[in-house]
Amino acid sequence: MAAGQAKAVFLTEYPVGTPQESQFELRDIDMPSIGEGEMLCRTVWMSVDPYMRGRMRPDVKSYIPPFALDEPLGGGAVSQVMESNISGFEPGDYVVDFAGGWKTHYVSKGDRTQKVDPNMAPLSAYLGVLGMPGLTAWAGVTQILEPKAGETIFVSGAAGAVGSVVCQLGKAKGCRVVASAGSPEKCKWLEEEAGVDVALNYKDYKNAGELAKALAKAAPDGVDCYFENVGGMHLEAALNCIAFGGRMALCGMISQYNNKEQEPGPPNLVNMIGRGVMARGFIVSEYADKAMEFAMEVAPLLAQGKIIFQESKYDALENAAQAFIGLFSGENFGKAVVRVGPDSV
Amino acid sequence: MAAGQAKAVFLTEYPVGTPQESQFELRDIDMPSIGEGEMLCRTVWMSVDPYMRGRMRPDVKSYIPPFALDEPLGGGAVSQVMESNISGFEPGDYVVDFAGGWKTHYVSKGDRTQKVDPNMAPLSAYLGVLGMPGLTAWAGVTQILEPKAGETIFVSGAAGAVGSVVCQLGKAKGCRVVASAGSPEKCKWLEEEAGVDVALNYKDYKNAGELAKALAKAAPDGVDCYFENVGGMHLEAALNCIAFGGRMALCGMISQYNNKEQEPGPPNLVNMIGRGVMARGFIVSEYADKAMEFAMEVAPLLAQGKIIFQESKYDALENAAQAFIGLFSGENFGKAVVRVGPDSV
Repeated sequence: MAAGQAKAVFLTEYPVGTPQESQFELRDIDMPSIGEGEMLCRTVWMSVDPYMRGRMRPDVKSYIPPFALDEPLGGGAVSQVMESNISGFEPGDYVVDFAGGWKTHYVSKGDRTQKVDPNMAPLSAYLGVLGMPGLTAWAGVTQILEPKAGETIFVSGAAGAVGSVVCQLGKAKGCRVVASAGSPEKCKWLEEEAGVDVALNYKDYKNAGELAKALAKAAPDGVDCYFENVGGMHLEAALNCIAFGGRMALCGMISQYNNKEQEPGPPNLVNMIGRGVMARGFIVSEYADKAMEFAMEVAPLLAQGKIIFQESKYDALENAAQAFIGLFSGENFGKAVVRVGPDSV
Repeated sequence: MAAGQAKAVFLTEYPVGTPQESQFELRDIDMPSIGEGEMLCRTVWMSVDPYMRGRMRPDVKSYIPPFALDEPLGGGAVSQVMESNISGFEPGDYVVDFAGGWKTHYVSKGDRTQKVDPNMAPLSAYLGVLGMPGLTAWAGVTQILEPKAGETIFVSGAAGAVGSVVCQLGKAKGCRVVASAGSPEKCKWLEEEAGVDVALNYKDYKNAGELAKALAKAAPDGVDCYFENVGGMHLEAALNCIAFGGRMALCGMISQYNNKEQEPGPPNLVNMIGRGVMARGFIVSEYADKAMEFAMEVAPLLAQGKIIFQESKYDALENAAQAFIGLFSGENFGKAVVRVGPDSV
């Protein structure tokens, strides 16, 4: 039996509009015990991700069920095995799975669980560049956009966990990369550290027309590939500048997630027709069977320093709600992770 | 030298909003004479098509240049060769090309010109089911949507030149076909003659929500494939009902073409992400090299009566503007063609 008190974060009501810290509550829970084919894990790092906002809408049918108010929240985590009745998982092992988020301890059945090596990369990286956001970026680039050397990629949300990997994969493939992010610091990092050609601070532009003008200047031959994380005026600007034969990977539309009412879409979708544009929405789970291929391509780039990353680290489960809310305010820079327990005990 | 007076239709000003007949003028022109590598043709049938509206916007960059005010309008036509300095084209031959529309006589260089057989099909069919609209429908279905037997296809503008072929190709491939059109007569023809499963008269529905409700009922397993001719509330309804893994072929958005100001897009594009949807805009010229493959598939279906078609026939070049304007009012049923000259002289 594990020592200490287990805790978990519960949602007390479904947010309407921007989530508030008061809607989250950290509660004591019973320390779980395990049966046959189960293991007990303690969470080391947990992930907060934009898709979680979608699970806070009980009335929307989606690819993943909504969170229940009377159960702990869930999500991706890096954890350490404490007790195990599953062969292949030993106490002390580190794992990534989708059950460990928002809690200190949990029971895993070991399905959809990957063992990770703490000596190959910092543990938190398995929630970012080497985890679900990295796979998302890689899948959008390699399975949907398929950019050719010399083409131009435009990336919104470019300083985020997904976008920053997209930018650097684009550079590794010989593309011109135009990035959009929400602060001068992020733009500076993108241009000076991550190597993008032009970074636009979208807050400098009042509307889609202004953003499109800046984008047209930064992408004089048009946007061949657009990686969409944001929606709204970014999508409209991208459609204004999209090249003939352009491709768009629709990964997220974070600007829309807290809308109380649906916001109208871009008025220039008709450009997709005249310019022969393909758009593909996707969720990362569609590419789960390509995790190995992803790791084989990204791990060497990471080792060579051709992909670097930023993290916004929050300390303790008490601050998980704040980390999550920071996703929507633009407060986070790179992957947002929350330290739930020490690396080792 | 050809006998008689040649005539052509000119645009006198660029329309803003819905085109008006007063913006078109039929004028006498010089009977053209031909040089080396040219042939003189007389137009038998001319086509009016929605894409022509796009060529009446001088300020919009598109895949095809805008019409000039001081030249005759142009477009697809079936014509007869009168004199020829091109080997392979003899006087009396019937041809389809893209230079003969909106005029009685013209000079062709024989590039992008196809000879057609008046004994295989009525000449006007080479502007419809066997012509550019038929190829458009076939390309959208076979090259983009790739429907599997048992899937559901939703088609907007379903009683039009393109949509009616999409519906029947869908049925030939074993799909459930839900059609939208703008009158009880069109819906009756679609269900009783063209064999679609359900035809919705979109004028019965006040908004996208109402249309989506009717569509959800007609497509209880969701819309696997959407063939888009209309835009606006049709696209929004389709996105509400789109199935996981859905595909959308964006061919036209005729509801938008006469807008004086751009209209906002659908507010539910985010559904493309959660449901892994692909949308592909296209213009038929992208598939010009597949005309043979198209003819091989569609000609037998036509011969077997598995594809039938409707035409709205207008008589004389004087009425070409009316035929064109009829595209936007929903007045036309099936392919709109204008008789410019007799089949033979």
